Amino acid sequence: MTTSVQNLGQFTIKATDGQARRGSLVTSHGVIETPIFMPVGTQGSVKALAPDDLENAGSQIILGNTYHLYLRPGDELLARMGGLHRFANWKKPILTDSGGFQVFSLKEIRKLSEDGVEFRSHIDGSKHFFSPEKVMSIQNNIGSDIMMVLDECVAYGADYDYTAKSLELTTRWAKRCRAAHPKHKNGQLLFGIVQGGFFKDLRERSLEQLAGIDFDGFAIGGLSVGESIPEMYDMLQHITPMLPQATPRYLMGVGTPLDILEGIEAGVDMFDCVLPTRNARNGTLYTSRGKVNIRRSEYREDASPLDPDCPCYTCRTFSKAYLRHLYVAQELLSYRLNSLHNITFFLTLVRQAREAIEQGRFAQLKARYTEIFAGGAN
Amino acid sequence: MTTSVQNLGQFTIKATDGQARRGSLVTSHGVIETPIFMPVGTQGSVKALAPDDLENAGSQIILGNTYHLYLRPGDELLARMGGLHRFANWKKPILTDSGGFQVFSLKEIRKLSEDGVEFRSHIDGSKHFFSPEKVMSIQNNIGSDIMMVLDECVAYGADYDYTAKSLELTTRWAKRCRAAHPKHKNGQLLFGIVQGGFFKDLRERSLEQLAGIDFDGFAIGGLSVGESIPEMYDMLQHITPMLPQATPRYLMGVGTPLDILEGIEAGVDMFDCVLPTRNARNGTLYTSRGKVNIRRSEYREDASPLDPDCPCYTCRTFSKAYLRHLYVAQELLSYRLNSLHNITFFLTLVRQAREAIEQGRFAQLKARYTEIFAGGAN
Repeated sequence: MTTSVQNLGQFTIKATDGQARRGSLVTSHGVIETPIFMPVGTQGSVKALAPDDLENAGSQIILGNTYHLYLRPGDELLARMGGLHRFANWKKPILTDSGGFQVFSLKEIRKLSEDGVEFRSHIDGSKHFFSPEKVMSIQNNIGSDIMMVLDECVAYGADYDYTAKSLELTTRWAKRCRAAHPKHKNGQLLFGIVQGGFFKDLRERSLEQLAGIDFDGFAIGGLSVGESIPEMYDMLQHITPMLPQATPRYLMGVGTPLDILEGIEAGVDMFDCVLPTRNARNGTLYTSRGKVNIRRSEYREDASPLDPDCPCYTCRTFSKAYLRHLYVAQELLSYRLNSLHNITFFLTLVRQAREAIEQGRFAQLKARYTEIFAGGAN
Repeated sequence: MTTSVQNLGQFTIKATDGQARRGSLVTSHGVIETPIFMPVGTQGSVKALAPDDLENAGSQIILGNTYHLYLRPGDELLARMGGLHRFANWKKPILTDSGGFQVFSLKEIRKLSEDGVEFRSHIDGSKHFFSPEKVMSIQNNIGSDIMMVLDECVAYGADYDYTAKSLELTTRWAKRCRAAHPKHKNGQLLFGIVQGGFFKDLRERSLEQLAGIDFDGFAIGGLSVGESIPEMYDMLQHITPMLPQATPRYLMGVGTPLDILEGIEAGVDMFDCVLPTRNARNGTLYTSRGKVNIRRSEYREDASPLDPDCPCYTCRTFSKAYLRHLYVAQELLSYRLNSLHNITFFLTLVRQAREAIEQGRFAQLKARYTEIFAGGAN
């Protein structure tokens, strides 16, 4: 772990275009240019891709899941192996979530208390406990560049009273996280997470409470949990501009290309989502001409590349016909080629967004993509 | 399809060491240095590996399976797409089997006649018929550099009378294949296949009959079908030196590193086997220090590379601990990294064999590997 980085945690806004921000964030493993998309490496591997694939796709930072890494291979093992960077041979920044979202997804097998959350492993049913202090310790062992506080992510449909009580708990946990992880300890940044469900006043209350804690950045949690797109965009547009200007803003677990552009327009700097890799494995590919379901028979003899505008190995090397064959024949290569392309697409999208903000033409970029992905699930 | 290659089919023996031969074979897509191992790309993809992976591993030629490619994506589609080379973007030589072995493996769902073999697809149960002429036409459509004749591969344990009748059928089919594919048509070479089960006189009879047909090479079929290793080696040592000296010799579907060295010692020039890729997917890895079962807990915190002597990306980049984690966590990357390593190992083995033959020290090389892989299934 590098602890001697100058200006650690410094976030510089280089340009703005409306609410959209073009920035850079200093971490222990390098500077991240924002807005950025972070490929998700749940178990210490972005599914089907190797570190050189990720670098070729333009990845600046990847995400690891604390819940999964704690269970397997185990955070103490990771610490003994020199941290996740060395273990997975990924030399650029890593962000870890707190494990909270995964644990709350377990529904029937977790139990919430003031002190933390008890849960059973999805692998072997064994019993575990995450407290704010514990998830700080786990993320210290993982050695990520950006850590997240433990929060309660309320389910979609939670009522006002439950959500209000929940955000207070999230605030108390956030304070305990900050206390357990003093600022920039081990060169690791720590972000708070705004909750409050789909109640604007509760979102504001959550933000107000968290803004008083000295975090290196703030995330919006609890979106893309089952609500409609208009509901999500409405809350995004409401709360994002209220987040502190001086620190990076991270929209957790979102989303489609249009969701990301919507977030950037509202002032979000960082995104992560399993969508590009999960959809790749299902044969749904994002291109500069829209979505392609590569399994469709119309591509059976299509000798053209998946996306003529894409610089990735998949598009430079193979035809849609071959990609369709690999998918239909359930060849393992299909997962890698499709994932490589989708990750490249998402990273190209945010690169274009950075350029567009610098040049004051973000609205045009968003309009272009809205046209491409209009009419149908985006 | 390149048809203008000078000296097409020319096989040059550059050095010998005992019966072992160091040669080169001219094909339409380049010269193959022998002895060589051919990774198997059953459905037009060597499982989990891309063409650049195969090139980095040192692959000179890969194999495609006629039965699988005929069913999916279909040989006529491949012809319309410019052949398998262009479809899969593999620029080096390709050998295709005749589909015979796969069809005979179907057991209950195939019916043999003088004219050919009727069978049902393992994918959808549809009925199909392979005649010698049909498999030539399919391989013409695939556009492989080396085609194989249709043969009957008798099951292990077949009796003398059945085997004797079967080899006569294989000879008649071989003649029909040669007639259907005139020498070097489309720049495609054609190899005959010696059968005869585990009866030395029948092997000799099969060879005698086939040697009179003007093939570009001869394969030994019907080994590694259930017999013991001593039985296989005994037959290999008996029949290989009897094969024509002037053309390449190909031992089909074999085998382990020690099997390959045994074959080379007996005078075999070409090998193919799914073992390195299949074992890779099962976590069984071949190294210069012996076999490694990467799932074993002893590797949990092993920071050393899988094989310090191996030049592959896997060994240059990751520890055994990370490879174990990927395998245990069932990460897709595990298949690729393991396959890349095993293929590199097999291709390094045959490269070392070529060098050893040139330097007259093949026996020492074989002794070294025998020691490495001694005591246990090799």
